[in-house]
Amino acid sequence: MLAQLIALDWGTTSLRAYKLAEGGQVLEQRSLSTGIMQLPRTPRVIAGQPCADGFELAFDEACGDWLDAQPGLPVIACGMVGSAQGWCEAAYRETPANVADLGNSLQAVRSIRGVDVHIVPGVIQRSRLPNVMRGEEAQVLGVLHHLAGNSGGDLLIGLPGSHSKWVEVAEGCIVHFDTFMTGEIFAVLSEHSILGRTQQRGGSFDGDAFDRGVQVALSSDGEIGPLSTLFSARSLGLTGELSASAQPDYLSGLLIGHEVCALAHAQRHRRNSVHLPSIILIGNSQLCSRYCRALDACGFARVSLGEQATERGLWQLALAAGLIPPTLSR
Amino acid sequence: MLAQLIALDWGTTSLRAYKLAEGGQVLEQRSLSTGIMQLPRTPRVIAGQPCADGFELAFDEACGDWLDAQPGLPVIACGMVGSAQGWCEAAYRETPANVADLGNSLQAVRSIRGVDVHIVPGVIQRSRLPNVMRGEEAQVLGVLHHLAGNSGGDLLIGLPGSHSKWVEVAEGCIVHFDTFMTGEIFAVLSEHSILGRTQQRGGSFDGDAFDRGVQVALSSDGEIGPLSTLFSARSLGLTGELSASAQPDYLSGLLIGHEVCALAHAQRHRRNSVHLPSIILIGNSQLCSRYCRALDACGFARVSLGEQATERGLWQLALAAGLIPPTLSR
Repeated sequence: MLAQLIALDWGTTSLRAYKLAEGGQVLEQRSLSTGIMQLPRTPRVIAGQPCADGFELAFDEACGDWLDAQPGLPVIACGMVGSAQGWCEAAYRETPANVADLGNSLQAVRSIRGVDVHIVPGVIQRSRLPNVMRGEEAQVLGVLHHLAGNSGGDLLIGLPGSHSKWVEVAEGCIVHFDTFMTGEIFAVLSEHSILGRTQQRGGSFDGDAFDRGVQVALSSDGEIGPLSTLFSARSLGLTGELSASAQPDYLSGLLIGHEVCALAHAQRHRRNSVHLPSIILIGNSQLCSRYCRALDACGFARVSLGEQATERGLWQLALAAGLIPPTLSR
Repeated sequence: MLAQLIALDWGTTSLRAYKLAEGGQVLEQRSLSTGIMQLPRTPRVIAGQPCADGFELAFDEACGDWLDAQPGLPVIACGMVGSAQGWCEAAYRETPANVADLGNSLQAVRSIRGVDVHIVPGVIQRSRLPNVMRGEEAQVLGVLHHLAGNSGGDLLIGLPGSHSKWVEVAEGCIVHFDTFMTGEIFAVLSEHSILGRTQQRGGSFDGDAFDRGVQVALSSDGEIGPLSTLFSARSLGLTGELSASAQPDYLSGLLIGHEVCALAHAQRHRRNSVHLPSIILIGNSQLCSRYCRALDACGFARVSLGEQATERGLWQLALAAGLIPPTLSR
């Protein structure tokens, strides 16, 4: 089966490449560690020319052989590759943003082999505290397209990660989103704060410790907020109530618990209703499973997982941009 | 004037030594960097004996000459020197705790020169999320003694630092306290997270940036909590609304603002009143000045600074322990 599109999800620390056929069917996919902060450095010859540019080298590693086999394949990419530190900056589009808005705003950069890489812009929400995303917009649009029919008014799309995004959608548009730095804060506290010193890491997932952290965040003790409750990961250790091996997942549960609790509060406030929206989670399955536990404990009753969000979103964006003939759309 | 007591405030990263005379008058004081995590390592002869113990070496550097001049001087010490990682563990005393409780529970360790160092125990609050302090208890008791007459029911004593403590007192006792890891979180985020990458540090204090961070934390935008608002230190930079040099103090204001906002909420809840207590701050003057700004913005109307808290507290504790004849008490 002939490929129709190469789709790249090119972030800070990783690069995922998809070879897609008619209808967006995945023919092959690859995962590389050549994110924009970890580009290859060893020069080599590409398309007959010596090349030392990290973006060119990573691009060639990711899909050079696919392009050799089918030289005319269009290429689309999302993620930090379009940031100011990326290959070519693709200026943010403002909310509300849909597939057509973003698909019509791709920023092309010509690679050394003469192929254009079409970069999806990120999305910016110009609220008092502005919010930005790069890469997540493709995933959200991929999930939205697949839902077909759900207008999104009762839906919240969650993308857990270093910087979790919670995205409100309406009629195919990204209309509002919040960011939580939970994942990165967990990482820096574990690696660089006093909380990490007593942690024994590397064990299997300790669900009881995780749930205990969530419960503390959701309890009346949690109302004082994470800047204070975090200290319990140490003090419960000092009193012998929390073992060293339980401390990492307790801390994870505490932080994710505070996040979902704040999210529930913000959602009820914005919707002016006690009713909480349905949730679709996109991302790493182990992390999504942690969020499922915490969301459930917090009263989010309808939580499901979005599949193949990135490749579906990039396929739709490539269609909207005219990179693929509409006759091949499905 | 003859000295009556050597008082040591011996923490994780620093050691402060005071030579005190009748009435607790300070004859001389020294500040060393030999906290328990930074002890000296070079062996030398102390009191005629070769010595390689870091605690002995630091103790001798801090006040060996004072003891040479007056060999019979009693020595009292508070802080992390009494922790499990310290010179000798002084088990926590439970809340409520006053000068007599702590003064009667000193833990002596005999130094190589034959002098006993009397270590003040820390205080533990065995609530569902336990809380602990070491060193701050001496400072709180020093301030309390000096207040004389104020029973403390309308008073909250704040000790800003890596781990801020907010201490409720009643009739000379420490009855309740909360910990916020604000200072350490600011440090690890600035040094190790993405927020630090765009910060330009080292400038003079930017009061406008600090106040702006405080206002965000106290505003309706701040209700979503610090895990989310922290991202604005990056996103406001991306939109050109916050300069690189303003980012450190904005982040500081944001975190301290979230702390005092949570504190006000917790205090109103605990006191079942909209009325906020008077505050006495103890600590580094630049940090106290930041907290004064944030507390004022948050509606704490009566804030003052506690002076000489450590040396006064250690003097009172030494008196209670009988290390000093009562006739010299004032």
